[in-house]
Parts: sequence; structure tokens; C-alpha cells
Amino acid sequence: MANISNNDIKRVKSLQQKKFRDETGLFTVEGEKMVEEAVRSPFKVECIYHRNDIGEEAMKRISALASPSPVLAVVRKPSDIYIDDLGRLAPEFSKGGLYLALDTIRDPGNLGTILRIADWFGIDAVFATRDTVDVFNPKVVQATMGAVFRVKLHYVDLPALSEVVLSAGGKVYGTFLDGRNIYSRTLDTGTDCPVMIVIGNESEGISPAMEKLVTDKLYIPPYPADDPGSESLNAAVAAALTVAEFRRRLF
Amino acid sequence: MANISNNDIKRVKSLQQKKFRDETGLFTVEGEKMVEEAVRSPFKVECIYHRNDIGEEAMKRISALASPSPVLAVVRKPSDIYIDDLGRLAPEFSKGGLYLALDTIRDPGNLGTILRIADWFGIDAVFATRDTVDVFNPKVVQATMGAVFRVKLHYVDLPALSEVVLSAGGKVYGTFLDGRNIYSRTLDTGTDCPVMIVIGNESEGISPAMEKLVTDKLYIPPYPADDPGSESLNAAVAAALTVAEFRRRLF
Repeated sequence: MANISNNDIKRVKSLQQKKFRDETGLFTVEGEKMVEEAVRSPFKVECIYHRNDIGEEAMKRISALASPSPVLAVVRKPSDIYIDDLGRLAPEFSKGGLYLALDTIRDPGNLGTILRIADWFGIDAVFATRDTVDVFNPKVVQATMGAVFRVKLHYVDLPALSEVVLSAGGKVYGTFLDGRNIYSRTLDTGTDCPVMIVIGNESEGISPAMEKLVTDKLYIPPYPADDPGSESLNAAVAAALTVAEFRRRLF
Repeated sequence: MANISNNDIKRVKSLQQKKFRDETGLFTVEGEKMVEEAVRSPFKVECIYHRNDIGEEAMKRISALASPSPVLAVVRKPSDIYIDDLGRLAPEFSKGGLYLALDTIRDPGNLGTILRIADWFGIDAVFATRDTVDVFNPKVVQATMGAVFRVKLHYVDLPALSEVVLSAGGKVYGTFLDGRNIYSRTLDTGTDCPVMIVIGNESEGISPAMEKLVTDKLYIPPYPADDPGSESLNAAVAAALTVAEFRRRLF
């Protein structure tokens, strides 16, 4: 059985905290399928620990899961997670594209599910406020089912980014209770100009600063149309329904 | 400050376990909004505990949440959660309707989100296998954001129920990777005959027993159409996209 030092255990375990992920530029993924995806991805895998090598006890100590899986990898984060110079995105936007803007998603499961949706529907990039939960939080990574390795996500100043999109002749969409029926409305689908779909916070919805920059307010109609029952949809569900409708228009 | 006995604390706390919920027919809800919804609902509220009355310490002991909310209610479950005699549903089906069939949803967050979706889109009733997570599990109840008080959910023998739907001239839909594009297909929307949409398990999908009873296999197309990126969508997201498309057809 190969050895893992107590220092290594501490170091790997510390990556469950954002502070240490930021300091080291590393994060962890667990499970055979996820580790396989990491290896096949452009991400740099620094180290892989197998239960058969380091033993059950050490595995339990480094794992973020209630029932540790047989394998855990330490992976290097991409270098462009935080983008300050938004001007460098202008050339990308000039080609059009469909983007998601997360106006502070706090639940790790929601962020993971949104990345999976972005992956399925071929979203060009996801942007998020700096208050959004860290995408390399172990709970987010697991919930993405591998989409974390395929979808580009950047933390940015979201209102400033929206200005860049608007300057490029783009549109900013968001769903609101007083918006207009998404199913009967003309939608720009990102083929001619950059299109950003804003997803609001789980309890606060879209922030006032972002609402001001929304060019088209949409509404996902309940059924029957005048009786929603629930007051709202879950943030990831609203993201799925909105993105799917933009993509459906291209069929 | 009103008293709460140690026995009461134990009794309320025990309701976090399915065994005791089944024995007593009771469950708990937490938070001001949820308790308010319980009180306004047809559910019978047996007892309400306020932090101001019983104290912080007792509240912490009876709460299922990491940060206990200021109020917790003990609520009686409806009596028709488990349905054995499926024949009694035939008259309801003869009127048509749109139903969800959960082919074993195990994640509490997913079940809660699915109930919220069912509430938003006016699903007539949700049916679930007996292996589906208990809807009165505190995590499910909280994730429903109140939809648990508005959406009818019954645990049944799902294949047997599908036979009843088919006997009533109904349709059984499900999403499969080899299904047909949901956006370009004719759909029965439940206005003329009962329509059941089957949602598969998080990792196994739709079971072979249920697959045999599906009359129409659907597929939610990714974008671009030949490149899904992810291998699948989250169960609650797939439910949302499917249900929304059935309702959209009625606009």
C-alpha cells in the first residue's frame, strides 16, 4: 500500500475550503466517472488518490462526501476564473452567442445543475457575480456531473459586463413576474448579436442594478395562466426553461 | 416562557424519521412562511412551537435545520398518501388530466423541486413508486416552498397504475435518449384523455417495467442537436422541460 503523509491529508482536506482553493489554485473531484472526465479534460490533474493505495481510513479523511468514493483527484483550476478587464470579452461578443449571467446563486446544488443545463444546451459561457457560490466547492463540482470541465464560467462585475454586451449591440433578458410570456414573444437567439440571460438569486430574484440593464423582461407562464399555485420556480428550473425556449426557436 | 417537556421534544424530533411519521401520521414544517401556508391549507395543524415561547435551546433540539427558524408546526398527513385500490382512480382518469409518475426519485431536493414544478404548471396529481423518498421528509417539505400543501401526491404501484391509465384510453410519455424530439412531435395534452409523464430515477432512468408501458418515447434535444455535452439532465430539470412543453401547447 502506497503512503499518504499526514501533511498530504491535511493539504487535500483543506481544499474543501475556498480560502485554500484560492491560495493554491487547486480543487478536488471524487468518483471514478468524475476523475475520468478530469483526466480527459483540458484541466491539469495534479494527483490521483485511490482507496486501494492509500487505504480506507485516509480516503475518509480527504473526502468531502458522506460515503467516500474509491478515487479522488486534485485538479488545477483554470487561470481565467476571475475576469477584471471586461474589455477583452468584446471581441468574443462581436460574434454573437448565448450566455448565462448568474445574479448571485448561493446554493451549490443549483449552481451545479445550472452548469449541467449550460452544457446540455451549448451555452457559450456562464458569468456570475463574485457573491455566487464558488464553482470549485466540492458540492458544486459533484452536482455538475462533469459539466464543470466543459462549461466556461467566469466571476465578473455583472452590471459592467451587461454594459459591454449592450455596447456590442446585444440583448439582456431576464424572467420577472411582470414580464411578457416567453412563449409568444420574439426572441433574439444569439445568432446575430450577443444575448445574455440573467438568472436571479434564489430568494431575492434579479438585483435592482441588473434589472435596470435588462432589455426584455420575460415571464414563464404557469398553468392555468392566471393561477401559478407556487409563487416561483426554483432558480435552476427557471434557467432550464428559459434556455430551452431560446434553443427551441432554432429548430 | 411556555414550557415544552422533554417528552414533547423527543416526540417532535422523532418525526424527522419516516418510521415515526408513519406511526403517528404527523410531520413537521419550519419557517414562518411555511407554517403560514400550513395553517391556510386543508392540512390539520396539530401544534405550533415558537422560539419566543419555548426558547432557543428547545427550538434547536426539535429543528431539522442547521439554523433553526423561529417557528415549527406539527402537521397531520393526509389519509390518502398510499393508494392500493387503483380502480378507485378510474373515474378521475375518465375526465382526462395531466399527471406525473415518479419512477423512484431518491433525492429530497429533487422531489421538492418537482412538487414546485407540478404546482406551477397545475399538474392534476403526482404518483410515485413506494421507493421514492418520503414527501414528508423535512428536506423535501422545505424544498417544496409550500407546494406540498397544494399538490396531491400518492405512493402507488406505478406499472399497475399505468395499466389503469392505458385502460382509460390514456397515454404514457417518458423521456429517453432514443426518444423523438419533443418539440416537433404531436402531444396529447390531457384535455381528451389521461396523460401520464414518467420521470426516471436520478441514476437508473426509467425502469424496464415502466419503459414497457410507455406509449410515446420523447427526447429533449440538446444544442447543437448532435452534441449534448452532458450525458443527461437532472431529473427535476427534465420534469420541468417536459411538463412545460405539454402546457405550452395549450397556449
